[in-house]
Amino acid sequence: MTYLECIGPLAALLTTCSFMPQVYRTWKTRSTESLSWTMLCIAVAAAFLWLSYGVYVQDLIIIISNSIMGVLQMILLYFKFKFSAPTLKV
Amino acid sequence: MTYLECIGPLAALLTTCSFMPQVYRTWKTRSTESLSWTMLCIAVAAAFLWLSYGVYVQDLIIIISNSIMGVLQMILLYFKFKFSAPTLKV
Repeated sequence: MTYLECIGPLAALLTTCSFMPQVYRTWKTRSTESLSWTMLCIAVAAAFLWLSYGVYVQDLIIIISNSIMGVLQMILLYFKFKFSAPTLKV
Repeated sequence: MTYLECIGPLAALLTTCSFMPQVYRTWKTRSTESLSWTMLCIAVAAAFLWLSYGVYVQDLIIIISNSIMGVLQMILLYFKFKFSAPTLKV
């Protein structure tokens, strides 16, 4: 594999990992105000479509990376729902 | 093109568009507190690697979608830098 051929897998790895620091930050800070509901919903839908496509073309890299991304984005959606919920002011 | 073959391009379109509502929300609210610097930096790096890979394998869909994503993520990085800057308390 040449250096140039490594770019694709490296890009896939970075894309897969990119949401990890966001999940960590959101979990630590409980802050979800700046996150867009629409972005998260579209990202989850896209991950599921990529996963279906990966199964259809039997590409293990697409399947694995989008499974991880889908899970990370669903965790972010859950955080957004949980931490954005209105609290009772007593 | 069958329905199943449409899944890939549709997934690519959703992925490309996913950061648009985030850019719009950040621009409207000026809120960047919940956004992770690390996520944004990794996402920009990944978009550039995908772009290089797209040029290498001469795939127009990879080139166009990652150019758009790269620009959107750089806009978010700029917003994060601009709106997170400490303000003078006078």
